[in-house]
Formats: sequence, C-alpha cells, structure tokens
Amino acid sequence: MNKPSRRRHYLVITLSSLLLASLIVSISAFSKEKTGTPPLRNTLTGSARYLFLFIGDGMGPAQIKLADAVLENGHSLKMTSFPVLGMATTHAENRYITDSGAASTALATGRKTTFGTISMAGNHLDTLVTIAEMAKAKGMKTGIVSSVGINDATPACFYAHTPSRSNSYDIAVQMASSGFDYFGGGYAEGNFGENRQKATAFKGDIDDLMQSADYVITRNRKELTKVQPGKRCWAYTGFDAKAAMEHAIDRNPEHLALTEFTREGIRLLDNPAGFFMMIEGGKIDWACHTNDAAAAAYDVIAFDNAIAEALAFYHSHPKETLIIVTADHECGGLSLGNRANGYDTRLSLLRRQKISQQRFSEKVSSWKKSSTVTFPMAIDSVSVYYGISMKDADSTLALTPANHKTLEEAYITTMKQGSTDSFTSAVTGMLNLRAGIGWSSNAHTAVPVEVFAKGRGSELFNGLYDNTDIAKKIILIAGLKKKPFPPIHTQNSQGK
Amino acid sequence: MNKPSRRRHYLVITLSSLLLASLIVSISAFSKEKTGTPPLRNTLTGSARYLFLFIGDGMGPAQIKLADAVLENGHSLKMTSFPVLGMATTHAENRYITDSGAASTALATGRKTTFGTISMAGNHLDTLVTIAEMAKAKGMKTGIVSSVGINDATPACFYAHTPSRSNSYDIAVQMASSGFDYFGGGYAEGNFGENRQKATAFKGDIDDLMQSADYVITRNRKELTKVQPGKRCWAYTGFDAKAAMEHAIDRNPEHLALTEFTREGIRLLDNPAGFFMMIEGGKIDWACHTNDAAAAAYDVIAFDNAIAEALAFYHSHPKETLIIVTADHECGGLSLGNRANGYDTRLSLLRRQKISQQRFSEKVSSWKKSSTVTFPMAIDSVSVYYGISMKDADSTLALTPANHKTLEEAYITTMKQGSTDSFTSAVTGMLNLRAGIGWSSNAHTAVPVEVFAKGRGSELFNGLYDNTDIAKKIILIAGLKKKPFPPIHTQNSQGK
Repeated sequence: MNKPSRRRHYLVITLSSLLLASLIVSISAFSKEKTGTPPLRNTLTGSARYLFLFIGDGMGPAQIKLADAVLENGHSLKMTSFPVLGMATTHAENRYITDSGAASTALATGRKTTFGTISMAGNHLDTLVTIAEMAKAKGMKTGIVSSVGINDATPACFYAHTPSRSNSYDIAVQMASSGFDYFGGGYAEGNFGENRQKATAFKGDIDDLMQSADYVITRNRKELTKVQPGKRCWAYTGFDAKAAMEHAIDRNPEHLALTEFTREGIRLLDNPAGFFMMIEGGKIDWACHTNDAAAAAYDVIAFDNAIAEALAFYHSHPKETLIIVTADHECGGLSLGNRANGYDTRLSLLRRQKISQQRFSEKVSSWKKSSTVTFPMAIDSVSVYYGISMKDADSTLALTPANHKTLEEAYITTMKQGSTDSFTSAVTGMLNLRAGIGWSSNAHTAVPVEVFAKGRGSELFNGLYDNTDIAKKIILIAGLKKKPFPPIHTQNSQGK
Repeated sequence: MNKPSRRRHYLVITLSSLLLASLIVSISAFSKEKTGTPPLRNTLTGSARYLFLFIGDGMGPAQIKLADAVLENGHSLKMTSFPVLGMATTHAENRYITDSGAASTALATGRKTTFGTISMAGNHLDTLVTIAEMAKAKGMKTGIVSSVGINDATPACFYAHTPSRSNSYDIAVQMASSGFDYFGGGYAEGNFGENRQKATAFKGDIDDLMQSADYVITRNRKELTKVQPGKRCWAYTGFDAKAAMEHAIDRNPEHLALTEFTREGIRLLDNPAGFFMMIEGGKIDWACHTNDAAAAAYDVIAFDNAIAEALAFYHSHPKETLIIVTADHECGGLSLGNRANGYDTRLSLLRRQKISQQRFSEKVSSWKKSSTVTFPMAIDSVSVYYGISMKDADSTLALTPANHKTLEEAYITTMKQGSTDSFTSAVTGMLNLRAGIGWSSNAHTAVPVEVFAKGRGSELFNGLYDNTDIAKKIILIAGLKKKPFPPIHTQNSQGK
C-alpha cells in the first residue's frame, strides 16, 4: 500500500472504533437507566439538585475561630476545610445591625427587609417567595432543621410570611400548611402560653394541625429512625420552655443531636428530583447573647458535626450537591483577646466548663428556692462546673482573693428574694476572662460573616457580597428561577 | 440581484472588513512594539512581575467595615471591590495572639516565627529569606513604604533579620545595606534616643549611612517628585518622636500622604524587570491600640487611597500585576455594636471627630502645662474636636448630666501633677459609645484577617489559610523561587 492509501485505511479504523465506543457507552447508559444502580439523575438541566444551606445563628468569624481552638488537638472544623470562602454583609433594610428575621429573609429570598420581618417586604404587604418554596415548586423535597424552635425567626423565614417574628403561633400554622416534607429540631414556640392566646385566629393545637396535614410526628430517636422515606415528618426532641433544644454542652444523650436531625432529614428527603435543606445552629446565638463562650464553642462544634452529614452525602453525589455554610449575623461582639490579658489567651480553658451558663443559672435558682446551699457549697459547684477555684495548680488561673470576694457579694445579692442572678454571669465572666475572651455586647453586631461553599457552583461564592446575594447565587446554580432575580424596587421605579 | 447572490456579496464584504481590521490591529501592535509606548514587557516567564503587598496593620474585618461606613455616602473602599477574597490565620509560632514582627515575618518569608522576631526562625539562629530579597535577587526593583517608622517591625521584616523588633538602630543599619531601591514614609526610629545608644555596634548616623549607600534622601514633596527613576531613594516626611507619620485625620497637607509615597514609589521602581513593593498602613494599629475608632477609620481610608495608586498601575499592566491587600493581625477587638446601645449604631457620628485622640491628648498636656484652661473651656474643645456636647440638637446624642460629671472628674484628676490623661480617653469613649463602637482590648487579637487579591494569579488567594501561605503563593505566582518552599524544620528532621 502506498502512504495515502494507508492513511485512509487508518482513518476508517479510527472512525469505526469511535462509533463502536460510543455504541458501548450508549448501551451502558441505557442499562444503568433500567437497573437504576446508581439511580440515573437528570443532568440535562445542568444545575445542582441537592442543596444544603447551613446557617450558624450569631456565628461570626471569631465564633468559628474560637470553636476551632476549643476542639481537642489534631481536630479542626469541617466548614473551614471547604474550598471556597466568601464574606457577606448582613444589615437589615432599615438598620445597620440586623436580627435573624431580616437576615434570614435575605438568605431565604434574596431581598432586604426590615428588622424582625419574616419573608415579607419592608412594606409588610408583599410576600417574598423563598428558595425553599421555589425548590418545592420545582418538584424538589424540602426540609427545615433548627436547634431552636422550629418556628423561630430563622427557620420561619423559609416557609412562612408574616410582618413580625413574634407571631409564633401563626408561623407554626403556616408550617402545617407549607407542604414541606421534613421539619426537625426544636418544638413549636407559641403553641403554649400567651403567644397562642395572642394569635390572630386560633386554629387548634399545632400537633393536631400537623397530623391533619399528614405529618408523622416523632418525639425520640427510635420513632424518627423508623419513619419511611416518602412520609412527611415533624421530628422534635427534649425541648425547653422556649421550644428550643438544649445547648450542645448540656445535651442529654437520649435527646437527638442536630447532626441526627440532619442525617435523618437527608434519609427522608433523598430522591431523584433533589431536595433543599436548611439547617440552623440556632443555639450559638443564644450562647453569645449571654456571653457564654464555652457553650457557643460547643454549639458551633455541634453545628459543624451536622455539616459532616451533608459532606458524607456530597461524597456520593459530588456533581449535583451544593453545600453553603454561613451565618445570619455575628452576636456578642466576640473577640479572641481581652483588655485584662493583653496578648495572653488560653482558649482551651473553656473545655473546663461542663454545662452552659443557662443550666448553671437554673441550679442557682434551685439553690435560692431550697435555701440550703451555702457560699462555700456554691464555690464548690463553680469548681465542678467551670473548673475554676482558688486552689488551681496553675496560680495564674486560680481565683484571687478579690475574685472570691466579688463572687461572695454576687452570691449574697443573688440569694435575696426578687433579685436577678448576678452570681452566674460573674462566674462565667471569670472563666472567659482567664481564657482571653472579650465580649463587647449582648446583642448582634454588624461585623460581616463568612460563607463557606463546596460542590456544584460553589466557585460563585468567592468574594465579598451582600447576604441577599447568597439566595440569588443559589437560585442561579440550582435553576430555581429562570429569569434574573427582579430588582427590589420595581414598583417604585416609575414604570421604567 | 437575487437573494443568494446578495448574501454571497455581503459575505465577501464582511470577510474583507475582518481582514482589513486584523491588518490594522497587527500594524498598530507592531508600531507600539517599536515605539515602546507602552514599553515592551517580557511575558515569556509567565509570572507576575509587578507585585504589591499592602499590609493594614491591625486591620481586621471590623476595621474595614467601619471605614466603609465612615466614608461619605456613595463611596466605598477600593480593597473591597477586589475580585478575590480569602482569610488568613495570624498566630505566632509560640503565641496565639501575634505581634507585627512574627506576623510580618510570616507574610515576608512564608515561615512562622516567635513573637517579636524579625525574619529569623524562632531559634534566633536561622535567617529567613524574604520575598523582597528574592525579588531583588531575580533582578526586580524593591520598595518599602510605611506610615510608621521605616524600621518598625512590619517594614523591617522585609529587609532585616534580627532576633528582636526592639533593635531599631540595627534594623536601620540593615536598611542601609539592603540594596533596596526605595524606602518611603516614616523616619528611622532608634536613630535618636536610647535605642541608638543601646545598639550593639554604633556605625554612625542613619542618614549618613544611607547617603554612603547612594540613597538620595528627600524630606518633602518637592524633593521627592524631583528624584529620577534609577536613583535609590529614602523619602520621609513630618514625623513624630516615634519616627511615625501623623494619623491621616491629623495630616498637615504639607506632609506627604501614604498615597503619595506609594505613587512616587511606583514611578521610581517601574522598569521592565518588574518590582516588589510592600506598603504598610501602620497607623491603623496605633489608633486601635488606643481604641480611637475615628482615627482608625481614616487611617484605613488613607491606606485604601494608597491602594488606588496600585490599581491605576494595574490598569496599565493587568496581565503582569498582582495586588494583595491583607493585615498582620486585628487590634483592639473592635466590634460594630456595643453593650450599651444594643442594636443601635450611628457610625457616621465618627465623622464629627476632627483630630486623633493622640493629638487631643497633646492639647490636654499643653493645658496642664499652661494651667489657663478651665473645665468649661475644655468642654468647648470637646465640642469642637469631637462634635459632642450637652446641647446637641439630637437629644439621644447629647452629653448627659452624668457624662458631664464624669468628664469633670476626669478633667480634675488629669490636671493634677503626675497623673495620666484620663480625660481624653473618656471623651473618645463617649463618642465611640454613641457611634455604637465596641472595643474589648488594647492589644492585638487572634481574629482571622481578610485577604483581597487582584490581578495575575489572584485566584490562588481564595479560601481560608495561614498567613505563611500568602508569601508562598506570591513566591509561586511571581516565580521567585523555582523549587517548592522548603519545610520549616528541615534541619531537625534527621536528614530525611
């Protein structure tokens, strides 16, 4: 054969091979579709179909860094290993420092609103559609998890619309009519007490309403793990008077952890059409409001453990899963360093604290009622639960005589009828001080929050942007809305 | 003409136009190459050749957000518009809260060291090569700019090597022998007073040493702008007893601003082989140490204005320029929100402050010496320089009778011989409180800092990493070292 002829021959062989290869690929794809192993996911839309939005309530950059320092040596947080980092501004439409209502409305709808509003515009007339509702409209399943009440501001912003976050009962009624597939975590605040009485129209007990809406209600681990995928489910666990789960540091092992609510949610929601899940670490914020650094750190860690469940799911579906971890705002003005200690920190000291400040304060209340606990007994409790005493082997950590006197005065004041508990906050403050913790507020602050992203479309989350952009990016990546997000003030822009 | 024929005709015209256009582009490119306007840059190495590293000393996320809020409406910081964002941890080798020595050693060399050390390993034996020195070795020009002393810890870490940042005189001697092309900003701390006397070996006046090393010394705007490119130059301006420039809020317009030192540096360093420039906003840190929010905000803004000069250069050389903006650490535990004001902030109130706390304190000292300033006169000064008084049109901002009493007591104490100035910090504290500012320390903190990146290789700066990684990334992008960066403990790893 001469050269040109040989070339032509090779060309025929090559083309034949390509045709054969593509035929094999086609048959293989067909057979997978039929057997369903792994289940064929529709990849034609080119969008993420498994969406996780983790919101650490009150979790600023300092809270994350603190939790990382409190973890035992050799461990670090999952969220900080995410490949993409961004930061988001958090202000409300009418206030520089936001609340969870306005902030989570931004995260849920991509729109600014006023302080305290739940997924309505600042005019309190226009309802704002949430990304969870958009996902549901697209045929995806939807789940909401929170370590505080399931109708607290942050979770509420994903399924309810009301001018005020304090309309707890009405929010819970909207939960029952949401059609969402899974609710997990705390109970419904306002389903008891005066909020229920204040409700504009009482429609019955929330548990009854949920059951009428075909929700299986589970109250413990055993019940939840038995629920079959396909069933609507509302799962709650040992909750307090505010319907919230315990702080992670206090958790009774019989109660479900945030990570379990997340894992079971994934199990129930997983389906070929995809799902949207919002998981809130709500107790971080509560710990920061009371300036309880140890409780905040362990709540961040519990939140991070829940993120690990999403990561495990991601590893099975890396091309179709998007995980976003962020916060609605910072809380407490937390700083890693304080005026008294200057350049010294011992953040690992916080590991000595065994219960939350809230739980310790409950003990102090019981002492007050019983009138049998003397100051030396109280100081023994401080040693047991906070690990600080006058006899510390490390003299730089020991309570000083001046500390002892301060605590004694606070104890005497606290034990008087009608006075508030200044003893507990003095104790927590002393441990925080020694650890090198600074707090400058009991409210939220306007410090920007971090955004960690992993998976499909995550590269869009690099940079510094507004919290409203987070929802807009999710909408884009998940194809939740085909048209660009409408501008905020269309109605006021004189028809232009 | 029938339709197909017309189409063919159009096609011929279009193709001809394209050919003609491409010919014009080719000729134009050729003519630019020949005339050297812009000068031909060697792009064969494939690496960034114009390197800017901006270090906002003490500039945490809250300081940046604060400065953005203090800017007049409609303006925002340049750095926050950068396309790539990262965050960096800042700890020293032996301490969780770092100082500028250990932190800037990390930024300059990619290696951790101990608190207070200047570009040496923690053993104080091994010298760590800096990215500025690597750039110089590669034939690039090098410039160092700082608003504090040019031999303060942060600038020192780029050209000097010494076990302690307090060896100011020795650091200045190393500046003279560095061979770097440009130094601008503050004067040499330790070239006067006891530090010079403490120096291990006195080698003469620093100005004399610099002149012997062929540096043109300029002391004002006129002199600096006359220096010809190619000359080595040391430029300083009206400096204080610590060799630092004024706070931006206090700047005498006759003194050069940080932005001018940057602009002139670019002019002197620009050459085909490229350059490395480090520009420090050192006074941000000083303002935060004294918890002076207004001074800190205006120093961040002055720093940002210097960044604008690098951006202008970038726009002429977008493919060869890399700009990094970061901080060595946070300072002051700044928070946007405080305990007294809860969810209320009025950060724009800080615009009322007309001079730094330091400058006001100097006034108070002069009052003390003269003994002619009464408390009512002092209160008038507070109104003039801080914009707070008992007669504020907005009653929520007015000084209360309790405030007035606090100030009067502080004034009386301060005016006593031998007492420190508690009056000034009380005044600054009152403005900060009303603005909604929280401070939890007078020292640095361990809160991670932001990294903004733009230009060649900037995409490597997304994510959360250690401050040592910043130098490693710059080395990689600029091709400063061909081999991977050596592990930290090579000498101790038993020859493996």
